[in-house]
Amino acid sequence: MKVKGKHFRSIWLKEGNEKTVQIIDQRNLPHEFIIEDLNTVEETKNAIKEMHVRGAPLIGATAGFGMYLAALEAKDEKDVEQAGKKLISARPTATDLEWAVKNQLKEMKKGNSIEEKREIALKNAKKIADDSAEQCKKIGEHGVKIIKEISEKKNGETVNILTHCNAGWLACVDFGTATAPIYEAFNQGIKVHVWVDETRPRNQGARLTAWELLNHGVPHTIIVDNAGGHLMQHGKVDLCIVGTDRTTFTGDVANKIGTYLKALAAKDNNVPFYVGLPSPTIDWKMKDGIKEIPIEERNSNEVKYARGFLNGKVSEVLLTPKDSHTANYAFDVTPRKLITGLITERGICKADEKSVLELFPEFRK
Amino acid sequence: MKVKGKHFRSIWLKEGNEKTVQIIDQRNLPHEFIIEDLNTVEETKNAIKEMHVRGAPLIGATAGFGMYLAALEAKDEKDVEQAGKKLISARPTATDLEWAVKNQLKEMKKGNSIEEKREIALKNAKKIADDSAEQCKKIGEHGVKIIKEISEKKNGETVNILTHCNAGWLACVDFGTATAPIYEAFNQGIKVHVWVDETRPRNQGARLTAWELLNHGVPHTIIVDNAGGHLMQHGKVDLCIVGTDRTTFTGDVANKIGTYLKALAAKDNNVPFYVGLPSPTIDWKMKDGIKEIPIEERNSNEVKYARGFLNGKVSEVLLTPKDSHTANYAFDVTPRKLITGLITERGICKADEKSVLELFPEFRK
Repeated sequence: MKVKGKHFRSIWLKEGNEKTVQIIDQRNLPHEFIIEDLNTVEETKNAIKEMHVRGAPLIGATAGFGMYLAALEAKDEKDVEQAGKKLISARPTATDLEWAVKNQLKEMKKGNSIEEKREIALKNAKKIADDSAEQCKKIGEHGVKIIKEISEKKNGETVNILTHCNAGWLACVDFGTATAPIYEAFNQGIKVHVWVDETRPRNQGARLTAWELLNHGVPHTIIVDNAGGHLMQHGKVDLCIVGTDRTTFTGDVANKIGTYLKALAAKDNNVPFYVGLPSPTIDWKMKDGIKEIPIEERNSNEVKYARGFLNGKVSEVLLTPKDSHTANYAFDVTPRKLITGLITERGICKADEKSVLELFPEFRK
Repeated sequence: MKVKGKHFRSIWLKEGNEKTVQIIDQRNLPHEFIIEDLNTVEETKNAIKEMHVRGAPLIGATAGFGMYLAALEAKDEKDVEQAGKKLISARPTATDLEWAVKNQLKEMKKGNSIEEKREIALKNAKKIADDSAEQCKKIGEHGVKIIKEISEKKNGETVNILTHCNAGWLACVDFGTATAPIYEAFNQGIKVHVWVDETRPRNQGARLTAWELLNHGVPHTIIVDNAGGHLMQHGKVDLCIVGTDRTTFTGDVANKIGTYLKALAAKDNNVPFYVGLPSPTIDWKMKDGIKEIPIEERNSNEVKYARGFLNGKVSEVLLTPKDSHTANYAFDVTPRKLITGLITERGICKADEKSVLELFPEFRK
């Protein structure tokens, strides 16, 4: 998507130097637009762990390129496997991370020498990124039908869509997951307006989703995470679309903390609640999301401080008494009973085992 | 309650000068403890409007003292009435504000001269504050039974209580509404731990409730507003208690934005959800809270910026792209179907018309 008129993906190889990966350091957005070089596995792990990059699909793509950097650094296959473990340890909840590492390891096995493995890793890293962008594009093409239908029911009046966190192109390689149908609708000339949850504690909504929508020209309003229920009670939300970090094949959705609360409000007010997801985000082993999906606890200072812009630089202000405890759960699980449907690259299905397996029959046991 | 070992109420007359009202300017808590003088109606209105003081009962008490200052300024009854209108206009949702102003006007009518009216207004302002403190004390005495029962069921293990916003002694004259049962339980030696919702956009939980609990020694953990649902899904919340700005006599509760979302999560996870309220907070006219209670929209900069402490002073950081729109709804309405019970100064009742009128039969039509 576009930044100041120039097309960007969220990760790419440096022009003229295929041994350097480039990313947008998302920590200082929307205040500062910084492009960062990744030259080592260690730098890549750090970029994932410290959330220079975030969002399930982008974490996957970054891990793909990370494994290519691992191959460049490695003497042998054992080194590459070691690097894979290191990358996987960076974020415990995102299933795409593990998927991309294992996919690279599997592909690299096809090469005989370390040189061949490097070549394969480069080609496959690019493919992982391209596939991810293509999947998001398809999510947009399928999801736009839902928006179009609501728009027609409202005789072309603005469709109000609520989203949580950033499941936009910054979280993916391009287009986004939750945002892909929104961008597609906007590009087709359907009138849309987006309620953007700020998404404390890291404010990915207020910082990233808003910045994306602003750059693309999509009308939007940022609200606190507390506000969505009130808006739904008063008919001001026609549709919720969120992303996901991990979805069980039975339809339970782990996404940014607070998603569950919005899904409850949507159910209580008969607002359709959809989840946009590329299939690598589906966990084909787990049945019960609430019981089984591990929920990352992050540094409690993310709750204690708010990060923002002051006097020309990014600063953090203390929000709480300095001696109070804080806790920082990063995700919650929205049970399938609250979800209207899943928008995947293969089409839209209900959030249940039967419907998911109808779209992805190759995962039937 | 105590601040640095000294007992404070949240509003009082200045020692040795009964023509000055003193309040704690709550905007800079917990970082700075500032006592502010109110000498005029205009200053009082401003303190209410700009939330130097906030919380339904304290707004009522402040309006009571404000009407005393009005009497001091006034030439005649018309002036006093004018001042009352001015005070009421400061915050549209809190019913205590209008109640206190009208109560003062009614009492002052008993005086013949303006001097007599001033004397009545002073005495009645003190009474409004004292009654409010006494009501909160009683809410604590009734509400502690709920906590005690859970504690006994858990064989004395810690009772985890979630609260939203600040319905503590800073919101009242003393004790608090939602916090009164918690303080009472703590003082009786029952093991409690409080999950404190930070309560964006103004962070009354992170700033005020946490500060109160810290000063009183009550174990607590501050969480983002998004986290409560996850905690309830995992059995980490035994009980929710919140306050209210206005409650219909049919049991619908208007409280800080986001309360509704917590009530939905409590219902979904069988967590009891109680509301602490002194009876002046009950609106005896409105039947349908969602349709009828006016919801204040506040300055959208409260969403755009976060206020906190940096380099020894209170500062605001910009959270969003500077050109993005923000919206700031201050309250939402939790429908009675989600509420386990109301804790009033007369006892605990169900959140429905029949039960409320059984406790307050004098309001039967």
